[in-house]
Amino acid sequence: MQMKAEKIDLETVMNGWLEDDAHIYPLMVQYEDTDAAGIVYHANYINFAERARTALLRCMGVDMNDLIHRGEIIVISSIGIEYKNPSVIGEGLFVRTDGFRLGGSTLNMRQVIGAVDGSIRAALDVRGAFVAASGGKPIRIPEDVRARMTKFMSIHQVS
Amino acid sequence: MQMKAEKIDLETVMNGWLEDDAHIYPLMVQYEDTDAAGIVYHANYINFAERARTALLRCMGVDMNDLIHRGEIIVISSIGIEYKNPSVIGEGLFVRTDGFRLGGSTLNMRQVIGAVDGSIRAALDVRGAFVAASGGKPIRIPEDVRARMTKFMSIHQVS
Amino acid sequence: MQMKAEKIDLETVMNGWLEDDAHIYPLMVQYEDTDAAGIVYHANYINFAERARTALLRCMGVDMNDLIHRGEIIVISSIGIEYKNPSVIGEGLFVRTDGFRLGGSTLNMRQVIGAVDGSIRAALDVRGAFVAASGGKPIRIPEDVRARMTKFMSIHQVS
Amino acid sequence: MQMKAEKIDLETVMNGWLEDDAHIYPLMVQYEDTDAAGIVYHANYINFAERARTALLRCMGVDMNDLIHRGEIIVISSIGIEYKNPSVIGEGLFVRTDGFRLGGSTLNMRQVIGAVDGSIRAALDVRGAFVAASGGKPIRIPEDVRARMTKFMSIHQVS
Repeated sequence: MQMKAEKIDLETVMNGWLEDDAHIYPLMVQYEDTDAAGIVYHANYINFAERARTALLRCMGVDMNDLIHRGEIIVISSIGIEYKNPSVIGEGLFVRTDGFRLGGSTLNMRQVIGAVDGSIRAALDVRGAFVAASGGKPIRIPEDVRARMTKFMSIHQVS
Repeated sequence: MQMKAEKIDLETVMNGWLEDDAHIYPLMVQYEDTDAAGIVYHANYINFAERARTALLRCMGVDMNDLIHRGEIIVISSIGIEYKNPSVIGEGLFVRTDGFRLGGSTLNMRQVIGAVDGSIRAALDVRGAFVAASGGKPIRIPEDVRARMTKFMSIHQVS
Repeated sequence: MQMKAEKIDLETVMNGWLEDDAHIYPLMVQYEDTDAAGIVYHANYINFAERARTALLRCMGVDMNDLIHRGEIIVISSIGIEYKNPSVIGEGLFVRTDGFRLGGSTLNMRQVIGAVDGSIRAALDVRGAFVAASGGKPIRIPEDVRARMTKFMSIHQVS
Repeated sequence: MQMKAEKIDLETVMNGWLEDDAHIYPLMVQYEDTDAAGIVYHANYINFAERARTALLRCMGVDMNDLIHRGEIIVISSIGIEYKNPSVIGEGLFVRTDGFRLGGSTLNMRQVIGAVDGSIRAALDVRGAFVAASGGKPIRIPEDVRARMTKFMSIHQVS
């Protein structure tokens, strides 16, 4: 607790890290994440997964803000989510993202949200696509983005 | 605009209404629902669908607050959602819920979120289950709740 | 409940209505609005107030989406909020907005969130300002917007 | 990025740290935090501040989940927030909390949300109170909680 900001690897925690062939993103359950049933409100796991995907993109050198400015945005095409166990305030959770695959304009991945003890909270299959911000039509993954993603995947053997 | 509160059928709008064999729930896209891409943030469609399910339960005479107090809560087991078209601030949307089916402890339904012009924004398959708030184990749908649901479904021929 | 969509004054409910010199906006507390303490999470009253302000602007003929496209956006400069009583799932609440005042680039108003029985939940003093979306510098309220607002206020004697 | 979880001081980042007489809590702006104006939606700064307060309480050894189970909850009585500058996706922000003062049943503090470069985004004065979860009446700060808070404040000279 007495550490100063400069001594802490903030970026690593904010962007997550790699373990084996997966990206790991840590988070803590906040008051705002819960609902009157006393557990994490189900839609908020979708937010947790989004934070992890954005962090993974940052690790790859892809900046969401830059994409928005270029008018080339990633939209989610479909999500399948299975809820396994509830989570409560103050719990530390991890989002494990793997199975990252690129198509012409699509990205697919698998995400599992769990706790340190191995208890799984939710598992998601996520399909996204690049679209033009103006009009919303699918576009091919921009070449510079694809290059960053494939380089990252080959270096880190991210499946 | 000059109408007084008592002249407006607030409850109908808040709880939605039935059309053919489906429950219809209206909503308007708010600032808070959008993200920096200028469209509704994908997780918020899950909220829209939740509001519609809660409204349908109220139509059935099932009160979420009462269930919480009894320690018999409905949790979501799985959601499959496909995103079709984006939505922007100020748009009026409708959540159409049908395919309502009861199991021993489970509820299943189909939800489609669309606009007045028929444009579909998202389609969901939702599976929920009754669990004990304490411990989280599945429980049979409480008999009084099941009775209200089946009565409602038979009167209104809700599939 | 058996009413069809066309029979219901959806727009009135979505946009709220005028009573005396105030704008009234109705809403229902949703599952997503609550937290693990079993009551509405405090930040969500800020959302309720925002929805009411957007609805009031729509009543005035001012479209948020249009403003965003023009690059002339309203930002909130300050909010003072006092929390009076808690709210639970399923409660019907009203946001009463009055004290609407225009400056060169600023808008001020008073908002009270309460229930039908007169119980007050939260009271807000809100100050907003028009800024350029690009750069964020304050700009004078656009003339067409000011004209709509002042016309509305004079017709309806909105203070 | 190749670090393993065990090498990172996750708890420090999740709970924040002390600098001089203030508690510092880091966060990163997420997609979900933004709105269609391309910047952080104003109500979400209230969430950022809540996360920092909860983290500070954890540093003090006060567990929100435990308080909820005991039926002794902290509610927010009032917030005054001034918005200074906008924030965009991917920005790293810090919540600095100081001016922590205890009354019979109340807690007061000052919170400033800013960036590494010193740019201030929002400043809040927050007043909270302990209440009984059942009934909502103010209660004296529980003695064990007060003891933890005062011990923490004296050791760390938190104002």
